[in-house]
Amino acid sequence: MSFWYPQTPTGRSSLIPAPPWHYSGDLLTVEYRTDPARVRELLPAPLEPAEEDPGAVALIWADWQSCAASGEELLDPVRAQYKEAFAVVRCSYRGRTYSRCVYIWVDKDFAIARGIHQGYPKKLGSIHLTRPHPYGPAPRIEAGARFGATLAAADRHLARTVVTLREPAESNGFVNDHPMAHHRRLPSVEKGAGLVLDELIASGAASFEGGTPWRGEADLELFEAPAEELARLEVREPIAAYYRQVGVVWDGGTVLETKEQP
Amino acid sequence: MSFWYPQTPTGRSSLIPAPPWHYSGDLLTVEYRTDPARVRELLPAPLEPAEEDPGAVALIWADWQSCAASGEELLDPVRAQYKEAFAVVRCSYRGRTYSRCVYIWVDKDFAIARGIHQGYPKKLGSIHLTRPHPYGPAPRIEAGARFGATLAAADRHLARTVVTLREPAESNGFVNDHPMAHHRRLPSVEKGAGLVLDELIASGAASFEGGTPWRGEADLELFEAPAEELARLEVREPIAAYYRQVGVVWDGGTVLETKEQP
Amino acid sequence: MSFWYPQTPTGRSSLIPAPPWHYSGDLLTVEYRTDPARVRELLPAPLEPAEEDPGAVALIWADWQSCAASGEELLDPVRAQYKEAFAVVRCSYRGRTYSRCVYIWVDKDFAIARGIHQGYPKKLGSIHLTRPHPYGPAPRIEAGARFGATLAAADRHLARTVVTLREPAESNGFVNDHPMAHHRRLPSVEKGAGLVLDELIASGAASFEGGTPWRGEADLELFEAPAEELARLEVREPIAAYYRQVGVVWDGGTVLETKEQP
Amino acid sequence: MSFWYPQTPTGRSSLIPAPPWHYSGDLLTVEYRTDPARVRELLPAPLEPAEEDPGAVALIWADWQSCAASGEELLDPVRAQYKEAFAVVRCSYRGRTYSRCVYIWVDKDFAIARGIHQGYPKKLGSIHLTRPHPYGPAPRIEAGARFGATLAAADRHLARTVVTLREPAESNGFVNDHPMAHHRRLPSVEKGAGLVLDELIASGAASFEGGTPWRGEADLELFEAPAEELARLEVREPIAAYYRQVGVVWDGGTVLETKEQP
Repeated sequence: MSFWYPQTPTGRSSLIPAPPWHYSGDLLTVEYRTDPARVRELLPAPLEPAEEDPGAVALIWADWQSCAASGEELLDPVRAQYKEAFAVVRCSYRGRTYSRCVYIWVDKDFAIARGIHQGYPKKLGSIHLTRPHPYGPAPRIEAGARFGATLAAADRHLARTVVTLREPAESNGFVNDHPMAHHRRLPSVEKGAGLVLDELIASGAASFEGGTPWRGEADLELFEAPAEELARLEVREPIAAYYRQVGVVWDGGTVLETKEQP
Repeated sequence: MSFWYPQTPTGRSSLIPAPPWHYSGDLLTVEYRTDPARVRELLPAPLEPAEEDPGAVALIWADWQSCAASGEELLDPVRAQYKEAFAVVRCSYRGRTYSRCVYIWVDKDFAIARGIHQGYPKKLGSIHLTRPHPYGPAPRIEAGARFGATLAAADRHLARTVVTLREPAESNGFVNDHPMAHHRRLPSVEKGAGLVLDELIASGAASFEGGTPWRGEADLELFEAPAEELARLEVREPIAAYYRQVGVVWDGGTVLETKEQP
Repeated sequence: MSFWYPQTPTGRSSLIPAPPWHYSGDLLTVEYRTDPARVRELLPAPLEPAEEDPGAVALIWADWQSCAASGEELLDPVRAQYKEAFAVVRCSYRGRTYSRCVYIWVDKDFAIARGIHQGYPKKLGSIHLTRPHPYGPAPRIEAGARFGATLAAADRHLARTVVTLREPAESNGFVNDHPMAHHRRLPSVEKGAGLVLDELIASGAASFEGGTPWRGEADLELFEAPAEELARLEVREPIAAYYRQVGVVWDGGTVLETKEQP
Repeated sequence: MSFWYPQTPTGRSSLIPAPPWHYSGDLLTVEYRTDPARVRELLPAPLEPAEEDPGAVALIWADWQSCAASGEELLDPVRAQYKEAFAVVRCSYRGRTYSRCVYIWVDKDFAIARGIHQGYPKKLGSIHLTRPHPYGPAPRIEAGARFGATLAAADRHLARTVVTLREPAESNGFVNDHPMAHHRRLPSVEKGAGLVLDELIASGAASFEGGTPWRGEADLELFEAPAEELARLEVREPIAAYYRQVGVVWDGGTVLETKEQP
């Protein structure tokens, strides 16, 4: 049986396989502070703002290769490779701090489907970030290395950054460093009938490995667009920027609560 | 409140607006017969094969402009225009005949999101179909006019057709001429916990207008691909082909049954 | 022998066939006045500014289907369909007025190759424009009809317009209404050796048919981008906007002069 | 003055900057033998087949980041990153062996423009190849590592390979190991007037650095398409496959001969 649609006896054409999902990738993270009220408005009850630094935001560009347990997608890389850019804030639920992705753009359909499953609000976008390389003009991961990144969607330019690395660090930031608290919601197909699914779920990596994080500073700009609200998370104060190469396994999450539908 | 994600107070960045959704578009339909067993394997219980002509398939290419009730997407056409190719079969439920989309590819993210809502198993693809035009070499909609179409996804070529129009017709086919019976299913985020949503829903156009359908014949080829199963619906016998321009409104569906989750 | 590359005995894989090239398409034209100095700086000698209205600019969105004399591309529409957006100014050469395309973006490779041949400075872009349709919410070509269009390239938003039609007109503007005067230039492959080809050529349609042009007014915005200069042609004063459906044949041009290379 | 079009006083919007061009990238090379007659038919006089192993072909997938001397494109990576797949054969000219690119697909416009300058017959395509990564499921460059790659263009699948690495090697193959001998040809804009430019040029890297090449074997398939001829270079006998990371500078070439135009 297919994990996802289309549903066929073989499951061979399912847009996504069953977890676990394995990832190799590079993360370019830019942390900054915005107006805490702009974060709060994105936290539906019962989520509350994080107690400390409630205006902290991480805007992250990622360059991934991913696959199912079989690894077969890696050998057909059009089905393994994708890039994404996403905005993460923190929130509090029953006294515990969670990360929460509030906006995200990806460039492949299987990544959108995973987002539906994991509660990431994915749209399609055009995402580019400098990649490190051992030869030629591209940067090594080292002091002074510079990485640029852009994000566009629906013919609009949404974000741009240039990051300069300074030194090794203990982590690649504190905003995206908690389990994710996401909603999975689906409206009824019947007009005006509200939601048929309204879950608050938590999830995080089942396993993780990574290289040394590098810290530096970023120049970051966000741009207005008619059907986007990323720029409401305006940059008030830079915090730091990071580059890190990681390997991750995701193998499901936990339902925190389900709002029963009438 | 947002109809869809991302969820924000304004709803302005929602990937899709609340229905009704209005459509202007052109449909190139190719009907043929395949092995009825290949159709049956795509019909989960309680759906049963259609009693008459159970191996009939329609492969349809469509070129759409769509919008919400406000019409605003039409003036920002990157958010209104998309193309799709989809395979439709018929099935029977409680003695009534329904159409059912078993495979579909689209080229925009908002169309994927609508598919999640309406139970269409959408993937991204590259879709092209000849458009009629009143001047120059492109065809008018008339006897002898020829239209070509292709479908590709994930670096693979999946289907190709050339249709020649012969005469006006009463309809643009019988396979996609019923309300749609679709499943809306979502796996639990908890590993191995099965589905949290498993609905069988019906939906159709809330209103419809259209030009004269034209009938003709098609040359159709389907191609194998590692993560696709469209080619299992092999072409055994051509039925007919059609071209039609239409205007449609979709405004929700009806839940036929819901399988309660444990 | 192949008209273009790749060069093979059959010519079957040539990116473009030999002319004549036949086109069916829709043109959305926005005319306005900019600082005449900004136009003049784009006119290399021996071209001079047009005597009348030297700051006039036309920014045109076009939605094309094109083919060779055989028409075969129309039946494989991925090789026939493309969209483009381009900026046209006027100039004077030996006392005659010419149109000249100074910037242009297209969304297919065969269109880029034709640009090399015809002297159009083509880049890739993402181009969208509302299409008229006889049914549903998309506009008919009539008084009050509204058409939107956007242009993006390299993750940047470059232009946006909304046009409202008012009345039938005699033409679809005066800026793009002359033969084109274009340069065809190619640098030597040898470093610092200047140009090996430097031609001034003229070309225009070998034949033309078209529907009634409609005139109206436009709201137009241009946006800055790091590697683009379209926004230097800033909008000082609107002139008018037009919508027209056309059929065109292009069958070569004429060399006005060739600068001999040392 | 602009090196390339569009031509503006600042040159800022030129699609490509003046050389030198600097590259960081990964090369996945598959060498095999085809019918030597199929190679010979792609070698216009005065080029002759290579004396030894005249049916040898290299099909190469490459994942590049490139920039001008300023390096600015690296920080705006949508203008630096591209992928390509290309077929290389060998030929002889005045007793010397050259490599020659006979087919090539890229995924960015600036790469197409460079191809016009360097004599590469570039089309747009969709190109994917597995990337090595130090963490997670993606391969390291080591014995047993497997890399997959696909190529599609114009809704068709053109080539697919899976390469398994076995051991370090002295080079990454012998087919693409010579200076390139390419034609730069441009037809007259005047109908039937033949070529206005017909040069045979040679070029190669101005400087080169690279990691240890790894050798292995490949499974390779080529596919037919209506407007492509790559599959004529059918795989008769595998030779070997290679993976290598490199840094390259290109700074112009040399004209071998120019055919004077009448």
